[in-house]
Amino acid sequence: MSRSWWCEYASLPTGLAPGVRITVSAGRIHAIESGCAVPQSADVRLDGVTLPGLANAHSHAFHRALRGRTHGGGGTFWTWRQAMYAVAARLTPALYLDLARSVYAEMVLAGYTVVGEFHYVHHRPDGTAYEDPNAMGRALVQAAADAGIRLTLLDTCYLAGGLAGAGHEPLAPEQRRFGDGDVAAWAHRADARWDWIECYPDTRGPNRVRLGVAAHSVRAVPKGALGAVADVARDRRMPLHIHLSEQPAENVACADHYGCTPTELLAAEAALGPGTTVVHATHLTPTDIAALGQTETVACFCPTTERDLADGIGPARALADAGAALALGSDQHAVVDPFEELRGLESHERLISGRRGRFSPAELLQAGTSAGYRSLGWDDGGRLEVGALADFVTVGLGSARTAGCLPDQIPYAASAADVTTVVVGGETVVSGGAHRLGDVGGLLARAIAAVTGADGQHGHASRGTTDADGMTETDRRRP
Amino acid sequence: MSRSWWCEYASLPTGLAPGVRITVSAGRIHAIESGCAVPQSADVRLDGVTLPGLANAHSHAFHRALRGRTHGGGGTFWTWRQAMYAVAARLTPALYLDLARSVYAEMVLAGYTVVGEFHYVHHRPDGTAYEDPNAMGRALVQAAADAGIRLTLLDTCYLAGGLAGAGHEPLAPEQRRFGDGDVAAWAHRADARWDWIECYPDTRGPNRVRLGVAAHSVRAVPKGALGAVADVARDRRMPLHIHLSEQPAENVACADHYGCTPTELLAAEAALGPGTTVVHATHLTPTDIAALGQTETVACFCPTTERDLADGIGPARALADAGAALALGSDQHAVVDPFEELRGLESHERLISGRRGRFSPAELLQAGTSAGYRSLGWDDGGRLEVGALADFVTVGLGSARTAGCLPDQIPYAASAADVTTVVVGGETVVSGGAHRLGDVGGLLARAIAAVTGADGQHGHASRGTTDADGMTETDRRRP
Repeated sequence: MSRSWWCEYASLPTGLAPGVRITVSAGRIHAIESGCAVPQSADVRLDGVTLPGLANAHSHAFHRALRGRTHGGGGTFWTWRQAMYAVAARLTPALYLDLARSVYAEMVLAGYTVVGEFHYVHHRPDGTAYEDPNAMGRALVQAAADAGIRLTLLDTCYLAGGLAGAGHEPLAPEQRRFGDGDVAAWAHRADARWDWIECYPDTRGPNRVRLGVAAHSVRAVPKGALGAVADVARDRRMPLHIHLSEQPAENVACADHYGCTPTELLAAEAALGPGTTVVHATHLTPTDIAALGQTETVACFCPTTERDLADGIGPARALADAGAALALGSDQHAVVDPFEELRGLESHERLISGRRGRFSPAELLQAGTSAGYRSLGWDDGGRLEVGALADFVTVGLGSARTAGCLPDQIPYAASAADVTTVVVGGETVVSGGAHRLGDVGGLLARAIAAVTGADGQHGHASRGTTDADGMTETDRRRP
Repeated sequence: MSRSWWCEYASLPTGLAPGVRITVSAGRIHAIESGCAVPQSADVRLDGVTLPGLANAHSHAFHRALRGRTHGGGGTFWTWRQAMYAVAARLTPALYLDLARSVYAEMVLAGYTVVGEFHYVHHRPDGTAYEDPNAMGRALVQAAADAGIRLTLLDTCYLAGGLAGAGHEPLAPEQRRFGDGDVAAWAHRADARWDWIECYPDTRGPNRVRLGVAAHSVRAVPKGALGAVADVARDRRMPLHIHLSEQPAENVACADHYGCTPTELLAAEAALGPGTTVVHATHLTPTDIAALGQTETVACFCPTTERDLADGIGPARALADAGAALALGSDQHAVVDPFEELRGLESHERLISGRRGRFSPAELLQAGTSAGYRSLGWDDGGRLEVGALADFVTVGLGSARTAGCLPDQIPYAASAADVTTVVVGGETVVSGGAHRLGDVGGLLARAIAAVTGADGQHGHASRGTTDADGMTETDRRRP
């Protein structure tokens, strides 16, 4: 059975076109006709500009619980990280299901149709495995299915607590649940995971989940292990993601220990290439930029996070000029708004270059759509063309924010609040600006209250929800 | 007659308080009671966080017509300025009334309760005066009254086309309508203006308009004339505003011609002080920062404009540490969202300092509220306290953006779309997220189409509206 939509304007690979009819069959775009002045009777009418689905190439879903809660006392990235660990410590599979479902629903409301979840909260707080060792990952898969967003689950290898001059530190108590011990144990769990993910096969059904792997960073994964994780990614033909040079301290520690930059270490471990996405890529040398460009590595910028966490402005234009692809992510979700990320990529470049138009509108849209899809292993998405995944997003042209702008420049004016319709795999998830799950703000408030211990009128008190093992989070935290 | 509101939370000078009752009489706050667990029967209930009204301390209303229209071809601040001049050339008093009304309505929807309009489009395109030489200013006053926002009309002296090494250039053809010829003629027109502004007296009626003066910049106002404009401001006890060092080219031209920085020139002209607001203050020397601080000058940052126009990041924290006050403005209105400006002030500092919490939440809110009010000549606004102007704004805590955040950190999470209620002088202008004028997006689309010549489905074709002199804009542009 096919369905059809009529778009007032649609952003096609050849540029913006008025009057475009999109026909969808089996979750993919079956036909695209332009020059259709009016809809046909069976068409769903989409007023405004319809864009390809937007990709959130870097997410830590639980960080959403920190929004608007960490600005009171100054500090740095590293003090923020302590607050983040406190939330991580409270997660159970059941609590994380509730939280991630609401965060992913917020993403779809904002126009994201696929998310790459950089997932490292694997185990119980003491580091022992849940009865199902992938209980947390399973919760994330369920959350994405409920929220109607595609998911690439980037199962993350996290082995060490940090990189001091003398070498890698053991995991701190609050990091124990992130670690599998070694690469073999991490890969073994990933194999186990492969069994249950089969319920989301590529060739039938909704096909909304793909798998990927991640090495957390050169801080958390030693040399040798980095190369081993990259081998796993290559063997399984999965995307590989890794945090890279987000903060100067990582570069200093890497230089002290290895005598090279993090990028040089990844290159030596054969971890760069078009299947690899390095996240942030903020503090790079010219040699680093050349290496990332020559290997056609993807650099995922997270502009709203990079300004919120005081990371700095990375060399996005230089990376693109050198040959790297660019993708975008909302990372810690201080903001969930794909248009803010697109504008951030461009405007941060403007702030340091003194010039406008550092990226063309088409380059920015590509970073936010097809390049992000590809970074997450969906080479067939993020484009409005025949055969592609039927993921698209409509932005209204009539709001106080978007009124008057040229339709092909709408990403420079729109906000998440201007998204009216979101279709994923041919299924309407957002319509009239409302998510099919209903009150997403309410879902978020309850889920965040449960993991922050907040109470009062804007969040229920932590309710002692039992997790998949039948233990309450309070039980879990007992020594 | 008094009216009362019950606020779930309100941001008082002493900090955030739950259960606050605000009683208003004759446009001012008559009483504030905290600890009120529930509303009284006559109270209007305001769920969420009620903040003092937000001040937009720097606006060029007509620049809104450029949003989402200037990103196609790269370029710089200076090429953007040519596009801006093209819109300025099409304005008539009637068209400007329609445009400014809709832009000011967008501002109120976003939470702004007062705007400082840096107004320099005074005359006919050929530079001759309208029959009423303040026809344009009158249109802005009417627009603000219609939109329900307080206005400080900063009547701007604009004498020269630019500052080259050899001296000041004459006004270019597209700048002719900005100029009065000399300071005496500018001040004479300001005197004439004083007559008609009397219909908005301080002591009775709605009292929504105050007057201020501006010198455009050291580019547009020569030495000597700068001091004369400052004298007018002092004589009339009005605020003085001036653009300062937005782009490096201004500093270079000033050094070439005067052998000093723009700030040093203003200091030599006795134009600095607590009654003066310098706008942007981006490219400053340590000596400039000290001078602005010692004189307690106000520095108005416009973060969303400064990143959109590739201006750079100014030394906001250093200015505050030196003694300057900080205010915020949306300037060219690439974005109209006071929370984005607050976050921009903080996050631009984070990007260059590597630290978070460069300003406390209270400092940011002060910059966005009371400091902005004071910069615009309203020393009695921007604070929720007895005797102050009854201007306040409620932000919901239940949206997908604000859910879960701490009520006192809501400016770090909210967007313009989360504003539910806006009260100005005790009068409700926005309720349930809707402006009393109705469809603001539609008003904007029509007004922008009329000044850009756009047509099609998202804007009516230019309609040849007649201006106050009965001439169409087409007539006006004939040689």
